Amino acid sequence: MSRPTHLAVTVARRPVAIPQAHDFALSTVTLPDLAEGQIHVRNHYLSVDPAMRGWLSDAKGYADRIEIGDVMRAFAVGVVVRSRAPAFHEGDRVMGLFGWQEQAIVAPDAVMLRINADAPRLSPYLGVLGLNGITAYFGTTDVCRVQRGDTVIVSTAAGAVGSCVGQITKRLGGRTIGIAGGREKQRQCIDEFGYDAAIDYRSEADLDAAIARCCPNGVDVYFDNTSGGISDSVLRHIRIGARIAICGTAAIESWNPWPLGERPNRHLLIKRATMRGFLATDYRDRYAEAVETLSAWVDDGSLRYREDVLDGIEAAPGSIAHLYAGKNTGKLLIRLSAAED
Amino acid sequence: MSRPTHLAVTVARRPVAIPQAHDFALSTVTLPDLAEGQIHVRNHYLSVDPAMRGWLSDAKGYADRIEIGDVMRAFAVGVVVRSRAPAFHEGDRVMGLFGWQEQAIVAPDAVMLRINADAPRLSPYLGVLGLNGITAYFGTTDVCRVQRGDTVIVSTAAGAVGSCVGQITKRLGGRTIGIAGGREKQRQCIDEFGYDAAIDYRSEADLDAAIARCCPNGVDVYFDNTSGGISDSVLRHIRIGARIAICGTAAIESWNPWPLGERPNRHLLIKRATMRGFLATDYRDRYAEAVETLSAWVDDGSLRYREDVLDGIEAAPGSIAHLYAGKNTGKLLIRLSAAED
Repeated sequence: MSRPTHLAVTVARRPVAIPQAHDFALSTVTLPDLAEGQIHVRNHYLSVDPAMRGWLSDAKGYADRIEIGDVMRAFAVGVVVRSRAPAFHEGDRVMGLFGWQEQAIVAPDAVMLRINADAPRLSPYLGVLGLNGITAYFGTTDVCRVQRGDTVIVSTAAGAVGSCVGQITKRLGGRTIGIAGGREKQRQCIDEFGYDAAIDYRSEADLDAAIARCCPNGVDVYFDNTSGGISDSVLRHIRIGARIAICGTAAIESWNPWPLGERPNRHLLIKRATMRGFLATDYRDRYAEAVETLSAWVDDGSLRYREDVLDGIEAAPGSIAHLYAGKNTGKLLIRLSAAED
Repeated sequence: MSRPTHLAVTVARRPVAIPQAHDFALSTVTLPDLAEGQIHVRNHYLSVDPAMRGWLSDAKGYADRIEIGDVMRAFAVGVVVRSRAPAFHEGDRVMGLFGWQEQAIVAPDAVMLRINADAPRLSPYLGVLGLNGITAYFGTTDVCRVQRGDTVIVSTAAGAVGSCVGQITKRLGGRTIGIAGGREKQRQCIDEFGYDAAIDYRSEADLDAAIARCCPNGVDVYFDNTSGGISDSVLRHIRIGARIAICGTAAIESWNPWPLGERPNRHLLIKRATMRGFLATDYRDRYAEAVETLSAWVDDGSLRYREDVLDGIEAAPGSIAHLYAGKNTGKLLIRLSAAED
C-alpha cells in the first residue's frame, strides 16, 4: 500500500526575511519504515500559513525551529494508510503536522484533529474548521471576550483567520470593521463576510481618518493580524477597557533586527486596555468544542470561507512568498494527487 | 475658623515636557464661600505624583486636563473645618483631590478616602495607605495575579509604588527583582524593601545580562513603571504566560510626539503574554478592602515605606521636576503649616 519513495519539500537554507521558493528543495526521498507506535498518512492537502515564517527564522520562537535539510513543517490533511498505533486505523481521516510531503510517517501526537467520516471535504480542516477557524473562535470568545454592541476592528480582515473573526463577531453581536489591502478584499469583507464597514488601507491617504469615520465612538476590540502602521493607527482609537488580541504580524518584514514602532504603553495606560498574544495551540484541550460549533455554522451557511488552491507539491516552495505578497484570496492550500475533491 | 485668603499654586503655562517650577505660580487667593453640599478642608500634606505630568499635558489623557490659571490638581490629606454636606463633619480626616493649596472648598466626591480617627499619622494616606499602596495592591493581586513561585520584576523598584509592589509580591510568595537608578536605591531595595535581587540600571553596562543573571528562568510578571529601554530589556526575558502591568511611563520624557521603541507584538505573541494598563481609580469600589489590608501590614511591620518631605507650599512648584529627576527617596510630599506631625 505504501510506496518506497515520495516527494518532499526540505529546507535548503535559512530565509533572510519572507521565505522564497529558492529557500526550499523538492526531492524524491525514501519513506522510512513504519515503526511500532507510528502511523503512515497519505496527505491530500498541504497548508500554507503565515506562522511558517516564524518556524523558519533563526530567532527563538514559539516552536522548535526547523533545521536545514528537514522536511518543511506544515499542517496537512490526509488519510491513514497504515497504523501501528492502537488509536488509529486504516482509512482514518486526520489533520496534523504532517509536513510538506506526499506521505508522512509520524507519531500519533502529530495528529491535531480527527475528521468525521461523514465530512464532505477534507480541505476545510486546514482552514475554517482547522487552526484558522479555531484561532478566530478562541480569539473572539476568550481572548477578546467580544460582547454585544462592541465595535471590533480586524486586520487582514478578508484572510483565512480574519474572515472567521469578522463573522464570529457578528454572531456575538459586535459591529465589525475590516481592514484589508486592495479594493477586491474590501469588497469581499462587505459582500462575503458581512462586515459592517471595510477599509482598504492601500487606497486610504489617512488611515486614522478612515478609522475615526468607521468607529465614531472608538474601538472596543482589535483583532491584530498585522502589527506595524495599521496597528499604530488602530491603537490611537481604542476606548477605555479595550481588548487587543495579538494573533499575527503580517506587516512586519523581519524581526531581525527588532523593528521600531510607536510605544503602546501610554495608550494602554490611559485606556486601561489589554494587549494579549495567543496561539490556538494553547486551546488544544478545547479544539473539539470549537470545531463542532464552527461546523454547525458552516453547515447553516452563517460562516463562509474561501480557499485559494494551488495544484501539486511543486507549488509549495513559492507559496509562503505568495501568501505574504497578499496575492491569495482565501485560505492558501496545496492540493496533492491523492486528493479526491 | 476659615481664613478669607490662603496660598494656592496655579498653572501658569502648559509644560513642554517635565513640568518645572516656572510653569506654576504661587499666589494668595480668596477662598470662595462654602455652598450648600460642599465641604471646607484644611490641607496638611500635599502629594507629588508622576501622574501630574499627564494631567498637565496637552494630549487627551485619562483625566480632564488642567487649564491655565486653574489650581494645580493634586491629592492631599487634611481635616474638614466646616461641612455643608450631610456625610461630613468638622474634624473628619480625609484624603482626596483637594489641590495644591492650603485650603479647599470641594464637593464630597473629591474625597477618595476617609481616614480613621485613630490613625496615628495622616501622611501615609498619600502613599503606602493611599493611591500608591492601593495601586500596588490591585496591580499585584488583580492585574498581574502574582502566584507563589513567580519571578517578578519591578521598575522604579524603590519608589512609592514600586516598593509596595515588591513587598506585597513577597507576601504572595513571589521572587522579587527590583530595577532602580543608583546604588543607594539599589541598596534600599535589598535592605529596606526585601527584594531578592536588585539591579542599578545606571551602573549596568548590559541590562539584558543583568536581568538574565537575576532571572535565569525568565520573568513571569513585570510591573512596569518606566516604559522605555528598561521595558524593552525586560520584555526580552518574559516567559510563556507572562503578565505585564503598565502602571507608569517614568522613563519617557514626552509623549508628544509619540516616542518609538521596539514593537512588543512578537514577544507577546510568542510568549502568549498579556500587557495591561490600569489605574487605581478603576478599583474605587474596593479601596476600603485594600487600605484595611495594607494598614494591617504596615502595623505588623511587614510593609515598610519611606517619605521624602519638603516643607511649605513654596516647595510645590518645583517638586514634579524633583520627582522626575529621581532625586526623592520615598513618597514625595509637601508638608503645610497645618500639619501636626
